[in-house]
Order: sequence, then structure tokens, then C-alpha cells
Amino acid sequence: MNSTPTIRTAEIICVGTELLMGQVINTNANFLASELASLGISSYRQIVIGDNRDRLLEQIKTSASRADLVILTGGLGPTADDITMATAADAAGLSLELHEQSYKQMSQFFQRICRTMPSSNKKQAMVPPGSTVFQNANGTAPGAMFECKAGTKEAPDHSAYLVLLPGPPSELIPMFQEQVRPILEKYNAVRFRTEYIRLYGVGESAAEERVKDLIDGQTNPTIAPYASEGECLFRITQRIEPGIEQDLITPIINIFRERFGDYIYEIGKRTLKEVVYDLLSSKGMTLSFAESCTAGMASSDFVDVPGASKVLTGSIVAYDNGIKEQLLGVTQDVLSDMGSVSRECAAQMAEGCRKLLGTDISVSITGIAGPTAYSSDKPVGLVYLAISDKNGTEVSEINLSGNRMRVRRVSVLHAFNMIRKRLQ
Amino acid sequence: MNSTPTIRTAEIICVGTELLMGQVINTNANFLASELASLGISSYRQIVIGDNRDRLLEQIKTSASRADLVILTGGLGPTADDITMATAADAAGLSLELHEQSYKQMSQFFQRICRTMPSSNKKQAMVPPGSTVFQNANGTAPGAMFECKAGTKEAPDHSAYLVLLPGPPSELIPMFQEQVRPILEKYNAVRFRTEYIRLYGVGESAAEERVKDLIDGQTNPTIAPYASEGECLFRITQRIEPGIEQDLITPIINIFRERFGDYIYEIGKRTLKEVVYDLLSSKGMTLSFAESCTAGMASSDFVDVPGASKVLTGSIVAYDNGIKEQLLGVTQDVLSDMGSVSRECAAQMAEGCRKLLGTDISVSITGIAGPTAYSSDKPVGLVYLAISDKNGTEVSEINLSGNRMRVRRVSVLHAFNMIRKRLQ
Repeated sequence: MNSTPTIRTAEIICVGTELLMGQVINTNANFLASELASLGISSYRQIVIGDNRDRLLEQIKTSASRADLVILTGGLGPTADDITMATAADAAGLSLELHEQSYKQMSQFFQRICRTMPSSNKKQAMVPPGSTVFQNANGTAPGAMFECKAGTKEAPDHSAYLVLLPGPPSELIPMFQEQVRPILEKYNAVRFRTEYIRLYGVGESAAEERVKDLIDGQTNPTIAPYASEGECLFRITQRIEPGIEQDLITPIINIFRERFGDYIYEIGKRTLKEVVYDLLSSKGMTLSFAESCTAGMASSDFVDVPGASKVLTGSIVAYDNGIKEQLLGVTQDVLSDMGSVSRECAAQMAEGCRKLLGTDISVSITGIAGPTAYSSDKPVGLVYLAISDKNGTEVSEINLSGNRMRVRRVSVLHAFNMIRKRLQ
Repeated sequence: MNSTPTIRTAEIICVGTELLMGQVINTNANFLASELASLGISSYRQIVIGDNRDRLLEQIKTSASRADLVILTGGLGPTADDITMATAADAAGLSLELHEQSYKQMSQFFQRICRTMPSSNKKQAMVPPGSTVFQNANGTAPGAMFECKAGTKEAPDHSAYLVLLPGPPSELIPMFQEQVRPILEKYNAVRFRTEYIRLYGVGESAAEERVKDLIDGQTNPTIAPYASEGECLFRITQRIEPGIEQDLITPIINIFRERFGDYIYEIGKRTLKEVVYDLLSSKGMTLSFAESCTAGMASSDFVDVPGASKVLTGSIVAYDNGIKEQLLGVTQDVLSDMGSVSRECAAQMAEGCRKLLGTDISVSITGIAGPTAYSSDKPVGLVYLAISDKNGTEVSEINLSGNRMRVRRVSVLHAFNMIRKRLQ
């Protein structure tokens, strides 16, 4: 890349017959769209197209003639179906050559997993000469960025940048965030400052109603609500225009603090579990879970945070009542009189787990995830959670809507939030 | 609709700036694509476009000129942003008129939820005269289907059907299934039969190499490989043409069986964990996990299968070595001499867990998920798993690539596969 022209507009092309057949949900388009929006790059179209050379070639040319940036995902694999790199090079009038460094890394990747590299994989290291190559830390296919001249009658000198990324989200997301985004930030005309306000325990529409005056009244910064499962997130974005460099975001955050108080668990990027990890880790405290309906999901989710081993000692998945009794010391009286989904059982589970595993804090989760309810007075979605530490035990009852997976996921978030509130 | 021409090809256009901004994941395209595939209608493109009249008009005309059917979703709401109906009518050269029945139903809908109908909602009952109108049982906007003449140089008489559906999946899905699909079935020429072959333990490119002759040589049925994290899936699709009604899929499956043998865990729709659940459940056996690096993920994943409580008794998350020793009976010698990531530790974990929880089978997982390695001889991705039952204990060593999340996910799949191989 010699010059650094401005990238104002983009199109996203996702390549893969599996998307056209409806076998896979297109989360890549969503991720990239949201990244482009945060970069201030307008994205006017997303296109899904199959593994078909003619249609893909035509689409790349059309998109390149309309936009400054075309991001392509998928079709970088080793098989005959995977035609994105060759077709994009064609569209740009470029040939392909072996990228030695990528080829070497690919060989090392196969050595590390103790397999022989099939000869078909060599294809993945072929890119147009002069490309910016993006290393793939989580798979074999490198990504690439190169220029594609696509002049039109109106703009004879127009050219677009093509960015090619692998299809699996576990490869695409880190590659974009670590290698592509920093480049796009440099090519960008407008600057934005973004801050996130994260809430737990208040529904999306209720939250939105409470700040409707702000959302409607603001043009800079803009305030956009984002619902995610069981959580609520607002993104505040300030356009930094020449002459308006001062911080317009903090006054908005202060109003949110006044209106939402303790529901706000983070101003920034940390997720709820990261906030909880930082709290526990800074106090040198240890944690365990006693899980029934979530069956290990709270522990497993928490361990997504690197370094979690400093805090999480272990957990008991007590799916069967026998385990609740035998390992966690839940009494037979409670199980027969109150049932395993009850305040009393949750309390005994947390206390028993804390004693058994010797941790500073233990949190229990017992509830009915569905699909079938136990009885009419214990419907699907009823969940009891308890937190136990040296100051005692506290139980919380929640009633959740949604399917089996949602009930379990939101229960886990609620468990994390109980720890946060206990420690903050 | 007077004639019933054949619908062979379709494009899907999803309208909504919230999709372009990455605020919403496009599940509608996925749903419709999978419905079209099951109807044998080839869908060559999916397009997402914002609430912009000019771009939408151009897109509808382009799509209508290429396909027999164009399905549009979103933009049927009551606000000024909602322009799909008017723009589609424009593209077809049609006007809009009030559809009395829809207007009446809309008024009744508002009565039912005890609200006054805002005057802006009247717009939602405006459709081109002669349209097939789809009633909306779950919202206000009706859907519509009408013809759009879109002749090209090559096909001057070409016309496409436009089908307009509301954006919210809770409205779109039932409307499509109950009202649109029956119409499309009548317009449909070709039928398809599909079967899935699912493998574990063989990489995508290695698997494809082994059946390359079949993939290259076949036109009916077609054979398509799909990689998913740590697994490998082939879809075999037979086009049922007049005169060729016999089963062409089974002979292909038999060749796969010969070539892949035990790597195949399922011919059909079940995932690996569902296969394992069915095996255990049919034998009346119970299961537990002893999890270190996966920290509850194996248990939690397994519990995604409804009814899992019949099989999974419970699990021990033994993240800390103290728990491995104290609860699972891993010896101090093993921990100090071999370390917690070792064959010996994995074996003792599985045996100890089986004894502690009294299950027929117990599977242990201990490994290094990263981001940092313990030492040079124990790199990130090294994982030991053991399975223990009344016949003894078997240990497996795997070396995985990828990030922390991938190492943990593939370890869980490997654990499930060990159970399958033990029981099959």
C-alpha cells in the first residue's frame, strides 16, 4: 500500500454455499458490520454468495466499483470449493504466488498438531504479490489485503481495497481485531470515540424508556442500546469533528449513573465475568460453584477469563439429588419437603460446597431449565441461587422466560452478578 | 396468480439499517435459505440493504431480473423508515390500495391489546391490487406476494414473484410456514433428498482427499464437505428427477463407510453428544466427568441434550490440584513427579471420579488450554483424557492447535468421542 486514501464506504461479501443453504447463521456479517460502524465506515450492502466462480467474480467487481473497501469472508480453505483468493485476485487483475512465511507457519502448525500437511494445503499460502498478509493464529488460512482497480464512468480512477478473511469466526474475529482493524483506523477520515455502559438486571425496553429523552435528543454523541441475552448495553459514540474535540461522553455517562445506579456494572469493555474476576483477584479471594441446572456452565464460562485458575478452585456439578446429599450435605428433609429447586436447597448447596472445597465464596444454582416443568407451582424458568461467604448466606429467586439454553445462560449471569454485588 | 409457472431460483433481500450496523444477527436469511433448500429452490444470493429507497429499488429490480422469486424481509412497519412495500410496488410498476380485510384485522389486534391504533398503522394495510395477502397472526403488518415484470435482453418475458414478509422472526416464521410455503410447494418442479454423514477425528482436508474421486465424479447426488470446529460433515443431496426416483444416496453412504469406518459417528442429524446420550440412555448407564482445563464445559454441553439428567449424575470441576488430590484421590507422587497434565493424573482423575460419584462411566480431561504453556515439554494444546468403567481405564493424549476456547471445545468433543467408541 503506497498511498493512504480514505475509506468511507464498505461492502461485505460472505462466501459459502453453506450460508445459502441455511446451514450456518451468518454471524461474520454481523461482527464485521458492527466493527465497520464503530470505525465510522458506512456499509451499504452485505451479500452472501455461493462457491461459484462466475457469480463471485461479478459480485467482487460490482462491489469494488461502488465501495472503497470490500471485505470477503470464507472460501480460503484448502479444498477445490475454496475459490475466494483466486477469484479476488482475478477481479483485481493479479496473479498468485507462494507467500513463503505463511507456508512455513502452516508447516509448523501441522508439526505442532503432529500431522502431515496434505499437499492441498499449500494452496492456502498463495496470495497476490505485494499483498498485506494477515497471519492466522487459530487455523491455517492466512488473510490478505490488496488493491483492486474498479474505475467507473463517474469515477474512472476508483479503486477499492479487498480484504479476505477466513470463514470460521474463531479465526476471523481475532485476525480482524488484531491485524485488520489497526490498518482501517489509519485509512479512516472521521474519528470516533466510543464508550460502553453495561447493565445487568434491567430489561432492554425498560432501560431504553428510562433514557428515551437522551436517545431522541442527541445527535453527537449518539446513544444506541444493544440488547444481548439477559444483559443490556449502551454504546455512546462521539464524532470528533474539527473544532469539537472536548469530551461529550462523560456528561452522558453521569446521567446514566444517576438513573441506573447499581444496575451499571461496567463503564468500558469488561464483561460481567471479567469484572467479577478482577474483584476476586484483587482481594485474593477464591471461588467455587455448586451447579445443578447449569451443570458446569458457570464454572466453564468463568474460566474463559485467562488467569481464572488463580480464583476458581473447583466446582461440584450436582445434577443428581444423590450428589447434592452425599457431597454437598443437602439434608434429606430439605430434598423431600422443599425439593431440589428451593431456597433451602440452594442455601445448603452453597454452604456445603464452600466447606467441601474450602473457598472464600461459593455460589449455588438450582432451577428448572425445561423443557418440562416439575409441577404447576414450580414452572420452567424458576431458579434459586445462593451465595455463601464468611458473613453468611443469601438466596435469590428468579423467574426467567425462554428456552432451556436461555434459562441456563441467564442463571449464570445472575450468579456472576450476585458475586459482584456482594463484593462491590 | 393466474398461471403457475415454475420457481427454480430465488434471492433473499433483507431490509434494515440495524442489520447493516451489526445491531441484529440476520437469522431470517438463515431460516428462509434453509426453507428454500428444502423446497429444492436454488438460492444464489442473499442481500442485506438499508432503509434507503434508491438502493432498495435498484436491488429489487436486479434481483427480479435474475431470479424467479425474490423474498424481501423487513421494512413493513408503520414508520417513515419502513419503505419496502412502496418500493417493491414501484419496482413492479404497481400502485398501493387499502386492503380492507387487513385493515379490519389490524383494528381488532389493537382492540385486543387494549390500545388505540395510531393513524400511522393504516399504511401497513396498503398493498398492490391483486396481491396475495398473508395475514399476520403475531403482529400488525400483513405480508404480500405479487408479480414483478423484469424482462432482460436474454429473457424479455421474464417476471419474478416478490414475496414481502415482516422482519421480526416471531411474525415471519409462522407466516412463511403456514401461508407462503404451501404456495411455493405448488410452484415447484424439483424435489431433493438429503442425508448427512458425520465424522469425528479426521481433518476436513484429509477427509476430502479420501473421497475426492466421489466429489469430482458425482453430479447426482452431489457431495459437499462442511467443516465445523473439530468435526467434519458431508451432505449428500439427491435431485429426484422424473424417472430417477430410486435411492442414489445409500450406495454413496456405503462407500463412505468402507473408507472412513469408525470415524463415522452418525448418518443423520444427531450431533456427537446426542449419539452419546442415546447410547448411554439405551444401556441404562450413568456418566460423570472430572474436568480440569475444560472446567465444566463437558458437563454443561452434555446437558444441552434434553433428558440428560437420566444419564449425567454429576461432575467434579477439579481446577486446583488440591481438589484433584482431596476429592478425586490423585496421589501426591503423580502430581509432583508427572504433573497435573499427565497420563497418570488423567487416569487417577477418571477412576477417582467414578468411585466418588458412583457412575458406570467417568471421563477425565486435564490439559493446557493456554494462553501460556507450563514448560517446553508441555505446550499449549496438550490434553490428556481418560475413560474409566468396570473394564478398566484407557488414556488418550491429544495435541490441539488454536486458542484457549478452541482447545477446550475440541477436548470436550474428544471426550464425547471416547465414550462413543467405548460403547459402540
